[in-house]
Amino acid sequence: MNWYLLIWVKPFGQIPVLEDDDLTLFESRAITSYVSYKYKDQGTDLLRIGNVKETALVGVWIEVESQQYNPAILPIVYQLVIVPMYGQSPDLAIVEAHVEKFNKVLDVYEARLGHSKYLAGDFFSLADLNHFPFTYYLMKTQYASLINSRPHVKAWWEAVSSRPAFKKVAENMTLA
Amino acid sequence: MNWYLLIWVKPFGQIPVLEDDDLTLFESRAITSYVSYKYKDQGTDLLRIGNVKETALVGVWIEVESQQYNPAILPIVYQLVIVPMYGQSPDLAIVEAHVEKFNKVLDVYEARLGHSKYLAGDFFSLADLNHFPFTYYLMKTQYASLINSRPHVKAWWEAVSSRPAFKKVAENMTLA
Repeated sequence: MNWYLLIWVKPFGQIPVLEDDDLTLFESRAITSYVSYKYKDQGTDLLRIGNVKETALVGVWIEVESQQYNPAILPIVYQLVIVPMYGQSPDLAIVEAHVEKFNKVLDVYEARLGHSKYLAGDFFSLADLNHFPFTYYLMKTQYASLINSRPHVKAWWEAVSSRPAFKKVAENMTLA
Repeated sequence: MNWYLLIWVKPFGQIPVLEDDDLTLFESRAITSYVSYKYKDQGTDLLRIGNVKETALVGVWIEVESQQYNPAILPIVYQLVIVPMYGQSPDLAIVEAHVEKFNKVLDVYEARLGHSKYLAGDFFSLADLNHFPFTYYLMKTQYASLINSRPHVKAWWEAVSSRPAFKKVAENMTLA
């Protein structure tokens, strides 16, 4: 194994990039899928390889995070956590507009998580894991209440965030 | 095989949804990945199963379409094709702002497609195919020039859109 994550500014001026021998990957969800697939036999099988239906449901909730959850939560965390790091004041109108959007997304999550312990089913998967970074920072703000006020979403987040691997990574997440 | 696409309004008020026996999927990119995987042995292998590196690169460019290309092209097509269907006038300020964004995305595509015939490599994949619907409608507008003015992007689109399966599906795409 010879891979590492690095800060890179091409082609879309984005980070992170994964270099694995002669393979260079970018876009965070493509990277997490690749690493999960490559190491499917070590630790938790995050993609449920071998069970087409479970893999398909993991795929659905990876896309839900990408298309619904992330566009709602990202501007909230950006305004409340990143903007102050540059000595600026958060734009509260942006926060409010996205809290409204995020509330609607979380209502769907609350219903879904009333039927299964995790998003794709009764198993932890990459779909849950991809929610980690932004939700982790949200929980450091006053808007943690958006998660905590919904019993099934709260129980899900507690299950996700109490995993030993989660805690180990979180130790180095010191933005907020 | 017992599956069909249908119009559905839950859980995020979006279409399409795929029902395949007792499995219900939503989010278009999750659906196309599932169908490509399930029928990987029929016709073109759109995910390059069996070649981990090629599959990883298909994954990268699926994500680029999702995170970069689609957010730029969607509002342009929406304003120019969908809005007029409801007897309203397009908001040209929205169009202009997204044309600027889309130009930057297409510059990256032009560089990439100077190195390989298709996005993930010298093979047609789901990454190319996911660009189909919105690009198809864009090409019916004056902004076809954004594609046609870039030699490598133009050659790519011509290769993609001359495929027999593409033409067959396009016959029923009559919005524009």
